[in-house]
Amino acid sequence: MALPEHGSREREMTYCVGLKMARGMVFMSDTRTNAGVDNISTFRKMASWEQPGERVITLMTAGNLATTQSVVSLLEERMKAPGERSPSVFEAPSMFQVARMVGATLREVIQSNANTGARADSTFNATLLLGGQVKGSAPRLFMIYPEGNFIEASDDTPFFQIGETKYGRPILVRAFDPEMSFEDAIKLLLVSFDSTIKANLSVDLPLDVQVIETDALRLGYAARITADDSYFQTISSGWGEALKMAFDSLPKFRMDDSRET
Amino acid sequence: MALPEHGSREREMTYCVGLKMARGMVFMSDTRTNAGVDNISTFRKMASWEQPGERVITLMTAGNLATTQSVVSLLEERMKAPGERSPSVFEAPSMFQVARMVGATLREVIQSNANTGARADSTFNATLLLGGQVKGSAPRLFMIYPEGNFIEASDDTPFFQIGETKYGRPILVRAFDPEMSFEDAIKLLLVSFDSTIKANLSVDLPLDVQVIETDALRLGYAARITADDSYFQTISSGWGEALKMAFDSLPKFRMDDSRET
Repeated sequence: MALPEHGSREREMTYCVGLKMARGMVFMSDTRTNAGVDNISTFRKMASWEQPGERVITLMTAGNLATTQSVVSLLEERMKAPGERSPSVFEAPSMFQVARMVGATLREVIQSNANTGARADSTFNATLLLGGQVKGSAPRLFMIYPEGNFIEASDDTPFFQIGETKYGRPILVRAFDPEMSFEDAIKLLLVSFDSTIKANLSVDLPLDVQVIETDALRLGYAARITADDSYFQTISSGWGEALKMAFDSLPKFRMDDSRET
Repeated sequence: MALPEHGSREREMTYCVGLKMARGMVFMSDTRTNAGVDNISTFRKMASWEQPGERVITLMTAGNLATTQSVVSLLEERMKAPGERSPSVFEAPSMFQVARMVGATLREVIQSNANTGARADSTFNATLLLGGQVKGSAPRLFMIYPEGNFIEASDDTPFFQIGETKYGRPILVRAFDPEMSFEDAIKLLLVSFDSTIKANLSVDLPLDVQVIETDALRLGYAARITADDSYFQTISSGWGEALKMAFDSLPKFRMDDSRET
């Protein structure tokens, strides 16, 4: 029996976060993929598109790399050939309709692989984060499941994570504030990513950042943060010290008798 | 077909940590078990035994509740009936031999369930943390796998976690120091558990704590920390503020052009 193709095994173990904020949205993704710990590569997991003055869209992906690359390629082909039988995300009248199209494309790619006889289950699965704004409506942020359905961020749940989400979640839960500046949001994401990178081999630099400012209707600040970025190094080394100081600032535990079992 | 017994589904999603320190060991476990989110109970996941002046042992469990309770019951039966055909952990000449006995007991329980025809796989699995000291040797800390084999904590890896380990890991990685006091170790564990409890429904108070001091050869400080514990509440509410101050103490991110993609 032949071994599976490289592309079918390669997984974006990944960590991606999308923040929905008062002034817009901030996205961050890592670039590590692996098909086993001895087979590691760097792939971009974030794609952004704009029609200046009309709409702006950012998509991040976690899961099977062949699946997520196919989804992005299909979406881009359809953008470049408008008016074909499959409508493009540039033609959808709202972000909700964009999310439906992206979800349908994701389901289609997963099913076409599953139909080749491989056991579908998780092998070809992927999960997406999609954010953007269409002129005339507010910015919206969605998490899209492998089945093609999706949920939307709200005031109660103003951020989504996909991939290796647990290590970096506590700091987001504690420190994220939708009113914070874009700069503080990027700093917070770097702390969250640094905690994840320190704990898990399957997530690593470089990190991609994309800012979408409400009503700008064009892509905002974008950056790739590499391992030699001096600011990232400051955060990565400084956070350990800052955490220890935070820890020391809390009152001491006392072994008093009142709790003894 | 009959539904599985309650006990066979009940899982300790659990969070347990064992710290190996210069002055001894500290253990903490939660008490939440569930057989689905609508079926939640409280069970102790920590058992401790002592023969004062001779040996002291603490065992923590994560996994199928029926399995872990059987393991503890079997170990206790054998302690109470010394000289029977199965030797007791009170008779083992070293902590290494105690770990082998506990591992063998765990494997035996899992296999006896698996042999009833149920698909073994993960259903009946459990993972254990075992620490203690036998007179004449140093204290030792082990993580025991469902297969009955085990690994030992060392200077490179001075703590083990089982169960829902990810949320609470970054603070341990950053702030644990084997030279710290028992009080600081308990405080650190409370921060780690609080981060986990805030993120995951399957871990919750009360928390059990056990300290084993090197060469004391008897059980040290033990406590049950409940939801109304005023110190825990101080840590739980204070940690959010302390984290925000730590975050603010780091330099600001600047959107300069050097990184733009």
